Amino acid sequence: MDRLLEFARIMTRAINFSAGPAALPLEALKAAQDELLDFEGSGISIMEHSHRGKEYARVHEETKALFHELLNIPDTHQLLFMQGGASAQFALVPMNLLRGRSADYIDTGTWSKKAFNEANIVGKARIAGTGKVDGRYTRVPKQDELDLDPNAAYLHFTSNNTIMGTQFHEFPDSGDVPLIVDMSSDLLWRPIDVSKFDLIYAGAQKNIGPAGITILIGRKELFQDSPKELPAIFRYETVAEGDSLHNTIPVFPLYMIRNVLRWVKAQGGAPEMEKRNRTKGELLYGMIDEAPDFFRSHIDKDSRSFMNPVFRLPSEDLEKKFIEEAAKLRISGIKGHRSVGGIRVSMYNAVPIEWVQTFVEFARDFHKKFG
Amino acid sequence: MDRLLEFARIMTRAINFSAGPAALPLEALKAAQDELLDFEGSGISIMEHSHRGKEYARVHEETKALFHELLNIPDTHQLLFMQGGASAQFALVPMNLLRGRSADYIDTGTWSKKAFNEANIVGKARIAGTGKVDGRYTRVPKQDELDLDPNAAYLHFTSNNTIMGTQFHEFPDSGDVPLIVDMSSDLLWRPIDVSKFDLIYAGAQKNIGPAGITILIGRKELFQDSPKELPAIFRYETVAEGDSLHNTIPVFPLYMIRNVLRWVKAQGGAPEMEKRNRTKGELLYGMIDEAPDFFRSHIDKDSRSFMNPVFRLPSEDLEKKFIEEAAKLRISGIKGHRSVGGIRVSMYNAVPIEWVQTFVEFARDFHKKFG
Repeated sequence: MDRLLEFARIMTRAINFSAGPAALPLEALKAAQDELLDFEGSGISIMEHSHRGKEYARVHEETKALFHELLNIPDTHQLLFMQGGASAQFALVPMNLLRGRSADYIDTGTWSKKAFNEANIVGKARIAGTGKVDGRYTRVPKQDELDLDPNAAYLHFTSNNTIMGTQFHEFPDSGDVPLIVDMSSDLLWRPIDVSKFDLIYAGAQKNIGPAGITILIGRKELFQDSPKELPAIFRYETVAEGDSLHNTIPVFPLYMIRNVLRWVKAQGGAPEMEKRNRTKGELLYGMIDEAPDFFRSHIDKDSRSFMNPVFRLPSEDLEKKFIEEAAKLRISGIKGHRSVGGIRVSMYNAVPIEWVQTFVEFARDFHKKFG
Repeated sequence: MDRLLEFARIMTRAINFSAGPAALPLEALKAAQDELLDFEGSGISIMEHSHRGKEYARVHEETKALFHELLNIPDTHQLLFMQGGASAQFALVPMNLLRGRSADYIDTGTWSKKAFNEANIVGKARIAGTGKVDGRYTRVPKQDELDLDPNAAYLHFTSNNTIMGTQFHEFPDSGDVPLIVDMSSDLLWRPIDVSKFDLIYAGAQKNIGPAGITILIGRKELFQDSPKELPAIFRYETVAEGDSLHNTIPVFPLYMIRNVLRWVKAQGGAPEMEKRNRTKGELLYGMIDEAPDFFRSHIDKDSRSFMNPVFRLPSEDLEKKFIEEAAKLRISGIKGHRSVGGIRVSMYNAVPIEWVQTFVEFARDFHKKFG
């Protein structure tokens, strides 16, 4: 512990396991810092540039190209940027796509439930599967446990459950029904086959960038002929036709996303992210599995999240102590979500393996001392 | 001109008259640059901090307090932050406030028309006055020209018309009908009596900060009992009850707003902003009035915008030349909106008087040379 304390003293940057807004790559932040007053010799900060000027246009195009490359987005799909986070999409998805029909939702915790509730206000939604066992969300449902409506407008699920610490490692098969996923907390954690999805949406503030931009990747048809009874600003069609520039885009968050994607690409893209994330997951879950009576996990092993491992300690007092001791090492953001308590270690792409090693070393020391 | 060219060569920052996103105070940018990797010794960038953490909480509270102080917001009103820009409010205002009635809209150009169109999709809206004369928006209507519906759900107007270059210098009196204003491009340009308005809304990217946050200042009652048939995320009630933190707020844009408001306060607040803005306006309109055959304005004098003066030159070729010559002096952002052409010089709070002096000197030189 002394060695770790000494290390913490000389660190200028803290170890940040925040669930989102979350750690960003240091290189992405440094690039922003370097040119914050003067974007590419223009004498103007990127955040002072018009969203219709040639400087921002370059950022916009490069960011789109990076997404297309890193996620291998097929020609059948279009990439959009919106505002309002995933929470706005909880409403906009049914507003645009229900069209008088019913939609299926898989219930895997807080966020999937919020999406379901909004759909139920807009129109009709039903629960097609749940991760709840004895009142707790301890897993994601398997394919044969789903009760799918073949006439549903779409099937919606949440690929990673930030609060519950669960994640889909195999995606549901919705058959002929359009498949819609909220990937806010695990988009780009590994390569995916975009063509399997009719719509992917994600708030940026986990793997992708700072808060303020929502990413949508959807089949082009799905962004057409949006209901005319919706205000123009809430029609996907408006956003798609305007290339996400129908109104002022949050220029700086989008620019930061570009910086983050440049970093992802330089590191080796989605395959390299997956490699690192699996290494981090093995470190963290290895620690849990070594001392399961102390680091208490109630998540089914095959539903474990590689983004947000959660666990409890034997008492709330120990959890409090754990967080306090971690803070002495400048380890922050590990308090579980207020709705569930416990410890949560969010390990998005920008979290280096070394941070997780340090955390695991600290946690084992803590176990020896207080276990 | 040689002196100006020499000056442009040694400037590290360009002169930016962009209509928005627009110039920000250099001090606000520098403060962000200094602590971009490490917010107040936390070892974490402000954009990596959780919106529920104590660091961001301080930014949130300070920003609210600064707005309250600088705009003298009375206890009857609440300040909210939302996403989606004024364009989202064009829809959300009628969605929340029409409630089956009809609303009155004053038509003063592109943005007011967009707001009217969205209201007409959501419900019923009527035009209660116009700034259009012979097919062009050359003024804002006077009180006795308004045709007000005493039973309207509200009266909506746009205080400053960024594209047309017009501005309300006296606000409409709506009697007992709630008064709603889009102040996107002139909030905080001078002191206002907030109590006269039932709702003020504004996209940040003019006087207030970078793009990504919308400011709402409204009567508390107006943010209560929002229609239950609206998705939770689009109910003002949700935002008001959650203190604008019901979902993830764009942390960095909000932080930049704090930096900008700190600067406004340090300069002397809204009265000092008004003083400077009037000086800039006098310089610019003085130049126009000296040579009205060359710098051609079609805006009524008492409707002139102090934020976005617009004018034409005798030919489009001269306008092109004017923009090119200005660029040599690193003067940017003066091309008029693509829908109307001509020249537009946006002079928000962060534009120093010196920039306008330089511009006027350049323009007079240009007139001598090419007039």
